Amino acid sequence: MLRLQDDPAYDCFYFIADWHMLTTHYDRTEDLGPWTEGLVLDWLAAGIDPAKAVVYRQSDIPEVAEMALLLGMATPLGWLERVPSFKERLRDMAEREVANYGLLGYPVLQAVDIAIVRGELVPVGQDQVAHLELSREIVRRFNNIYGDVLLEPQALLSSTPLIPGSDGRKMSKSLDNYIGVRDDPETIRATVRTFITDPLKVRMGDPGRPEICPIFAMHHVFSPAAHVEEVASGCRAGTLGCVADKTDLADRIIEYFRPYRERREQLEAEPGIVQKVLTEGADRARPIAQATLESVRSAMGFP
Amino acid sequence: MLRLQDDPAYDCFYFIADWHMLTTHYDRTEDLGPWTEGLVLDWLAAGIDPAKAVVYRQSDIPEVAEMALLLGMATPLGWLERVPSFKERLRDMAEREVANYGLLGYPVLQAVDIAIVRGELVPVGQDQVAHLELSREIVRRFNNIYGDVLLEPQALLSSTPLIPGSDGRKMSKSLDNYIGVRDDPETIRATVRTFITDPLKVRMGDPGRPEICPIFAMHHVFSPAAHVEEVASGCRAGTLGCVADKTDLADRIIEYFRPYRERREQLEAEPGIVQKVLTEGADRARPIAQATLESVRSAMGFP
Repeated sequence: MLRLQDDPAYDCFYFIADWHMLTTHYDRTEDLGPWTEGLVLDWLAAGIDPAKAVVYRQSDIPEVAEMALLLGMATPLGWLERVPSFKERLRDMAEREVANYGLLGYPVLQAVDIAIVRGELVPVGQDQVAHLELSREIVRRFNNIYGDVLLEPQALLSSTPLIPGSDGRKMSKSLDNYIGVRDDPETIRATVRTFITDPLKVRMGDPGRPEICPIFAMHHVFSPAAHVEEVASGCRAGTLGCVADKTDLADRIIEYFRPYRERREQLEAEPGIVQKVLTEGADRARPIAQATLESVRSAMGFP
Repeated sequence: MLRLQDDPAYDCFYFIADWHMLTTHYDRTEDLGPWTEGLVLDWLAAGIDPAKAVVYRQSDIPEVAEMALLLGMATPLGWLERVPSFKERLRDMAEREVANYGLLGYPVLQAVDIAIVRGELVPVGQDQVAHLELSREIVRRFNNIYGDVLLEPQALLSSTPLIPGSDGRKMSKSLDNYIGVRDDPETIRATVRTFITDPLKVRMGDPGRPEICPIFAMHHVFSPAAHVEEVASGCRAGTLGCVADKTDLADRIIEYFRPYRERREQLEAEPGIVQKVLTEGADRARPIAQATLESVRSAMGFP
């Protein structure tokens, strides 16, 4: 996101998908405000610059809702029912609560988020390519029925490697296996200690297999290349133990995020900064959204 | 609708559900404009008075779309999948095209149509009571989760008897068994001739059973009570034949709608009248819709 905003070849739109949050958290809306505020502060602290990228909140653009209603009329139910992540969520939710109509429509809303600002490229990881493909299909079908109105977005694959979480699965907030970028040093140290490593490396001296270790995967992000090599050979030789390795990695993560934490603290002290960013972002995103919705309405025969 | 608009006890909202039309006609949007225009002219010709009732078009109220998105997040999928008319439509559509996401969400949009103008009473026939019940359930669930925000509407059962069509089923445009209120006299005569009557009354002189005859059912609407009695006894005695009976009924229908046809012709000659009615109606409906949406957003934690 930082690289793209600094490249004059791109006009970046970064938005907070607060309506999407409702698809699974509709009964916990008291989290909505703090979640949005926290995310904007995270972005700003990480270097997202509202002067370079349009930073806005989905729910500030009512045109998104109307366009979602319209695109939903031309989106086959079967496409949505077959989405693997929908089926997964249905399973996850079964115990806690019922699935709602909005959850099934998640991909329609996602297609609108992209198409309404005329998104050409969507920066995603490999695991999101299938979701983007569904957005492309929804857009294509709309264009087939109503004429060439919407842009068909392309994936812009991110070069960031997959980051494993404490249990070895993809690091994810919903799996609660993550290190938070805004965690304080003690929390980061404690979380890193909970990470699994090679289960065959039981005690100091045992040889390890760095290629299956989530701690090693994170060294690729937080350590210089030469140190990554040292860790790999030390682990394989059995001279580097997991406890020392984790302490080393935690120190590097803490150091990596230090400037971020400091900037975030400064930002938190500025009253109204989040609201200012979101208001200005909405003012920039809305005219574009209005123009797209206008062309959608017109193609569908609305006055 | 006429009786209600004339009764000072009611504030009437009559709207054209053009977004709902897309649930089954998304690929025939060229009909949308003429269909809306024709319906407004029908209403005006029939006596609906925009000075007494708010007459507006659904798609002129974008707040409806946003509120539908929000209510859809709290509406269980299972409720929608179990709606009998949804299953029927799925069956009807199978040959022609695919069902879309919007079709499944029909009841959510319907609940919003009612709740957004704070509808207390919905004038419906007995066959629509189940649909209204689902609207009530959607509203109740919203109120249970987010607090007492929306009004739970009640049915106002219409006293109009069920009107059978030419095949004896409920008269309906989609079954193509109807007499159009704007049909010219020749078309009305021809359509009435196609109506089924008692299949056991084959020739003049055979006794008939008026209680199973759709022509007789329409006499209740278009003939004075004394004449209804004459027809019943003539039919039962076999002295009144079906051809004469149909000619008599057609004359009465033609006469009944004569002032309507004349008013409609005058209205059609007034340029811009439909647009004027819809613009003024939207201006009156929108502030109410905005206030409702505001209370919905606020209850759900949106700023």
